[in-house]
Amino acid sequence: VENFERVAIIGVGLVGGSIGPAIRERRLARETIGIGRRLASLAIAQDRGAVDRVTTMLSDGVRDCDLVVVATPVGAVVDTVLEAARYCAPGSLISDGGSTKAKIVEELDRRLGTSSKVHFVGSHPLAGDHRTGPVHARADLFVDRTVVVTPTTASDHGAVVRTCQLWRGLGARVVTMLPDEHDRKLAATSHLPHLVASALAATTPEDASPLAAGGWRDTTRVAASDPALWRPIFATNRQHVLDALDHFEHTVARFRRALATSDDAELEALLREAKRVRDVVGN
Amino acid sequence: VENFERVAIIGVGLVGGSIGPAIRERRLARETIGIGRRLASLAIAQDRGAVDRVTTMLSDGVRDCDLVVVATPVGAVVDTVLEAARYCAPGSLISDGGSTKAKIVEELDRRLGTSSKVHFVGSHPLAGDHRTGPVHARADLFVDRTVVVTPTTASDHGAVVRTCQLWRGLGARVVTMLPDEHDRKLAATSHLPHLVASALAATTPEDASPLAAGGWRDTTRVAASDPALWRPIFATNRQHVLDALDHFEHTVARFRRALATSDDAELEALLREAKRVRDVVGN
Repeated sequence: VENFERVAIIGVGLVGGSIGPAIRERRLARETIGIGRRLASLAIAQDRGAVDRVTTMLSDGVRDCDLVVVATPVGAVVDTVLEAARYCAPGSLISDGGSTKAKIVEELDRRLGTSSKVHFVGSHPLAGDHRTGPVHARADLFVDRTVVVTPTTASDHGAVVRTCQLWRGLGARVVTMLPDEHDRKLAATSHLPHLVASALAATTPEDASPLAAGGWRDTTRVAASDPALWRPIFATNRQHVLDALDHFEHTVARFRRALATSDDAELEALLREAKRVRDVVGN
Repeated sequence: VENFERVAIIGVGLVGGSIGPAIRERRLARETIGIGRRLASLAIAQDRGAVDRVTTMLSDGVRDCDLVVVATPVGAVVDTVLEAARYCAPGSLISDGGSTKAKIVEELDRRLGTSSKVHFVGSHPLAGDHRTGPVHARADLFVDRTVVVTPTTASDHGAVVRTCQLWRGLGARVVTMLPDEHDRKLAATSHLPHLVASALAATTPEDASPLAAGGWRDTTRVAASDPALWRPIFATNRQHVLDALDHFEHTVARFRRALATSDDAELEALLREAKRVRDVVGN
């Protein structure tokens, strides 16, 4: 039996474009509808059979849907959820895939209000890639990935359960935490690494880049991501990223001192501590 | 026809252990001899047929060899080359695979002297990996990789030509430059990224690491490397790494300012410049 009748997916990039085929493969809904603004992306989603129907008209697309997933860039999530809430069926569940959660969830809790006829629960599937867009979408994108679901005290309990079921149904491991806790942790595991990788790439002298090998390519890979997608991620998580950056720069300063004072024992101790943490998480 | 009669490879880790099978597959020498201190590594090289003969006795191993490749950790290269020079045949070529070049080449130019009966030419195959050791060795390790050969005014011209022929024969692209130029460029493309990746890994709060996904794993991957191999790389390239770190921190400071002052246009400009450099080098 399907978990959902009719699912609207707003934004058919890497994440949104993967939800349709994943839902179909696992028979989680009777019908999927892809909603987007760019016809080129909708055309790819349609050609690949990623969704059953496509439309650029949000109000039409979400009508009669019992689940709406907003997979737009972070900066557009709030307005898109509010618009979808006006048109989808009473009792519907709306979730999103935004990479930051506190600002989105706080604003929606406030603006939808407790009397809302629809329920919003924030999500963040940790399934990003520097290769974005619908051509990289795939039905197994969420398999064995982590999805963070971020309920608050204002969340409807049943809606939270259904949100977790959705992602588990797509093969993901689900963890729940408060939006601010999510943003603090993602600052350390995603946003700071992105900043650092970008600073590294930008710093590489042009005459040295022919000598860039595997280490450089790994370390700077995420810097190839779309700046327009990352600007609002940073903009909605400033303080946690700045805090994580302080912590990082404190460690960089220890490396600098060890290098400058020829304290090679300290240098090796720092490298050992880094390897210990890296090895825990694994490849 | 073979380029070399008998080749001794001192150190049978990832790089050294790959030279034997690569030479055999391409018939570049009549015989290969693996020399090492750790019996466990030699046993793996022998079991895999990576070399024709193995020995722990350097003086025996290099006798009658016309090519000796020193593939030990950076800190052991100079002494190992000097010892090999005492025992190998007159006219022999000795090269190495060390990740830094200026200190090694300067010291060997000085200590071997111009009247040396053997010729040393420095090399650095950009074929490293965080998975070190003989079990990861393979005959195609050098194919389409870059090898930097670092002759000086003291180098024998014929020896430089033979060194370049060796690496080209193993499938690599060869570029030549002065040792100091190599070290300056590798500080930017390898040593600084290693430092930054290590600082990022070490900085990750333990409670956040379950939320580490692909971006974190790519950005910190090289931090899993062996600290004992990297300590002497940093120790022999301090000033260039410190200079590269200055440059990096200047860019990080621009990111910090853009975040702290909500200058999102500047933030996006920084991300765009990083993407431009990253895209030039490619995956």
